[in-house]
Amino acid sequence: MSTSPYTTLKAEAYAANMELHALGLVIHTFGNVSAADTSRGVFAIKPSGVPYAKLRPEDMVVLDYNNEVVEGKLRPSSDTRTHSYLYREWEGLGGIAHCHALYSVAWAQAQQDIPILGTTHADHLTHDIPCAPPMADELIQGNYEHNTGVQITECFRERNLEPQEVPMVLVGNHGPFCWGKDAAQAVHHSLVLETVAQMAYLTLQINPGAPRLKEALIQKHYTRKHGKDAYYGQ
Amino acid sequence: MSTSPYTTLKAEAYAANMELHALGLVIHTFGNVSAADTSRGVFAIKPSGVPYAKLRPEDMVVLDYNNEVVEGKLRPSSDTRTHSYLYREWEGLGGIAHCHALYSVAWAQAQQDIPILGTTHADHLTHDIPCAPPMADELIQGNYEHNTGVQITECFRERNLEPQEVPMVLVGNHGPFCWGKDAAQAVHHSLVLETVAQMAYLTLQINPGAPRLKEALIQKHYTRKHGKDAYYGQ
Amino acid sequence: MSTSPYTTLKAEAYAANMELHALGLVIHTFGNVSAADTSRGVFAIKPSGVPYAKLRPEDMVVLDYNNEVVEGKLRPSSDTRTHSYLYREWEGLGGIAHCHALYSVAWAQAQQDIPILGTTHADHLTHDIPCAPPMADELIQGNYEHNTGVQITECFRERNLEPQEVPMVLVGNHGPFCWGKDAAQAVHHSLVLETVAQMAYLTLQINPGAPRLKEALIQKHYTRKHGKDAYYGQ
Amino acid sequence: MSTSPYTTLKAEAYAANMELHALGLVIHTFGNVSAADTSRGVFAIKPSGVPYAKLRPEDMVVLDYNNEVVEGKLRPSSDTRTHSYLYREWEGLGGIAHCHALYSVAWAQAQQDIPILGTTHADHLTHDIPCAPPMADELIQGNYEHNTGVQITECFRERNLEPQEVPMVLVGNHGPFCWGKDAAQAVHHSLVLETVAQMAYLTLQINPGAPRLKEALIQKHYTRKHGKDAYYGQ
Repeated sequence: MSTSPYTTLKAEAYAANMELHALGLVIHTFGNVSAADTSRGVFAIKPSGVPYAKLRPEDMVVLDYNNEVVEGKLRPSSDTRTHSYLYREWEGLGGIAHCHALYSVAWAQAQQDIPILGTTHADHLTHDIPCAPPMADELIQGNYEHNTGVQITECFRERNLEPQEVPMVLVGNHGPFCWGKDAAQAVHHSLVLETVAQMAYLTLQINPGAPRLKEALIQKHYTRKHGKDAYYGQ
Repeated sequence: MSTSPYTTLKAEAYAANMELHALGLVIHTFGNVSAADTSRGVFAIKPSGVPYAKLRPEDMVVLDYNNEVVEGKLRPSSDTRTHSYLYREWEGLGGIAHCHALYSVAWAQAQQDIPILGTTHADHLTHDIPCAPPMADELIQGNYEHNTGVQITECFRERNLEPQEVPMVLVGNHGPFCWGKDAAQAVHHSLVLETVAQMAYLTLQINPGAPRLKEALIQKHYTRKHGKDAYYGQ
Repeated sequence: MSTSPYTTLKAEAYAANMELHALGLVIHTFGNVSAADTSRGVFAIKPSGVPYAKLRPEDMVVLDYNNEVVEGKLRPSSDTRTHSYLYREWEGLGGIAHCHALYSVAWAQAQQDIPILGTTHADHLTHDIPCAPPMADELIQGNYEHNTGVQITECFRERNLEPQEVPMVLVGNHGPFCWGKDAAQAVHHSLVLETVAQMAYLTLQINPGAPRLKEALIQKHYTRKHGKDAYYGQ
Repeated sequence: MSTSPYTTLKAEAYAANMELHALGLVIHTFGNVSAADTSRGVFAIKPSGVPYAKLRPEDMVVLDYNNEVVEGKLRPSSDTRTHSYLYREWEGLGGIAHCHALYSVAWAQAQQDIPILGTTHADHLTHDIPCAPPMADELIQGNYEHNTGVQITECFRERNLEPQEVPMVLVGNHGPFCWGKDAAQAVHHSLVLETVAQMAYLTLQINPGAPRLKEALIQKHYTRKHGKDAYYGQ
């Protein structure tokens, strides 16, 4: 019997990793999800290099926000330092997901924000989905995964974006990072991003001059689903 | 045992909602279908926020055309007022379906009608599929879902279209609404629309100057399938 | 027990119709395959309007090349006269398939031949896949399905194409017709056409100036698979 | 009981062929994988013309690098001489895979290298994926499959590429060949190539001017996964 104090957290991280894979968002093994326990300042993340078919809840690695392993025998995902940096900098995140889904990656490689073109987008966030520029060479050659976190938070700071309002970002030339109140929501946001990325792609192929969604519709769709007057549910 | 007088109507609405989902037309939970009993002036619609895996026939909510709940404990879909408005304005509709299918949404976001380019389209309707323009700000800020219905019927009135002949519309920047003699047909029209939307997309990518289908073919394909001399069936 | 002399022919037609559907080439119910017995001058074809899930071998309708029903109680496919015309005009065809597969239809709606751009195409035929122009109005308003056959054979006559060498055609604004030595091969050619149509689409999106396959490669790939010196097999 | 000294090699080749098919990379039967035993100078390859559903490990054909059959009763794949040429010229290859996957073929037909546009690509190789030009006519008319191997190795020689560093190539107007330390890795590289081909396609549709990945990111992603300081694993 497991007597680990992190059994629930590891189960949550495990389930979210498997869901990301089941949704078809993971190309090869390129994906990782973590689940945080903010009260204890720790998070559980997928181990490095274990195929999904063999992954078990007990394989999850638990670390604190300074990347010290608290529990687990396997090596944590190589992207761990991006996760820990975001948990440390942005209070209140309960989960983070990273993947290489096709349309999300295509926009990241195109180095373009995904413009808000419709209500599917506005149901989830009121801003264009930001694409952080590729890192400066010295940041790449340094502590790369840590600096990926820096690049994300800098992008939000410069554009005055709040991570609670914009729960997703594209890292230029790389791919998407999404977050949420827990790991399941981070995975859900990854799916929303991929869907919105494909819709925006198709829209601009049909009409390269398709206008941004008008402000009144952005506000209406967002507030009917979020905030104190929310009444939305399809 | 259920002694509800709406058991059959709710079963029809339930089956149509599940079919819309099974056809892959529902992105996330973004879809809702209703089934109307025109003789009694009521319709059954999907409740708000229940995942498809947990949905049951008895969860459907029955309302009259003034949005008064006649039977059901759950909150009806947030798009209910669009459904009720269309049932009230357009006599004879037996079902309405709404979803966020990818190619349908892309054309709606492009704010373009889907031109009639081939016989697959003409087998179902003789007009371009209309894209209603986004609503004026005061309509958005008012009774939004009700006004979505207004926007649809206004679009048909201005263009002199009959809902019996054109059983589908795109709402600009939002997505498709389809209808029919019953809920199953409304779902079928949603699939037709998504297929025709993808074919038109691909056609114009290959040949941006692809001509509209000639009038003789439009009439031939439509009349061999519809009307008193119909003989069609593949 | 069936004592029909057409049991085998009907079984062949049934299996081919089900395979066309299983391959994902049939949009809705838009597809039909027939199998011919050239020695007896008859063919078996899918009945009109029966859903695939309910289709049975005994439902196939057997007709002669003058469209007289030889066996069967159901109404034959509305495209029957196109099949019979081709069997009558082009000796030796053992099967014909028609569908509304997405990329094949897109090229038909674009009213463009599919250019031969690679060895996948050349493994099957040495010519561009012809797109017959839409019919003249008087042909459409007349015996439409019969005249679809006329349009196809006229297109081949004008371009000096042999149906044995080019076992497929696009009918402008409509979709593909494919044929072969039997119904199974007609279905296989439908799949080849859809694949080649998608490859050509993607190729020209990447490089609108992609050159036609050079003649030496066309001849090499075709002759290693066809004719007396064939040695091909992957 | 089999007493063949090649049972293991044939099992490896069989499994890799089935995996290539299961991954959806084989269009029709257009695919073949071989597994080499470099110590004995032989390889096992798929037989010609056997459908995947009927393929068995014992059907694999074993040949030496001069194309002499060492074991097996069936005819080896018609592409066998391309495989043997590459094994002979490039020491150390343990497996080779060929297929007609859609996006890989599209780039080959477009006669363009696939530019390195993101980290998904850089995780596997640091170069653009080369597209060898179509062969000269006399090479096509001669020993075609042998000369396909010549065309590939010539392309690498001219561009100063090492097969260990660039484990994949497009043959112009034809399709991809991939290799690796064993047959399973050759199949994996085929999947990587198809994924990267689709990502690059989408990226350039969104932004035709998308820049090549910066050199620091290319080096970082490749070295964190390969070489003596590798630490990568998602």
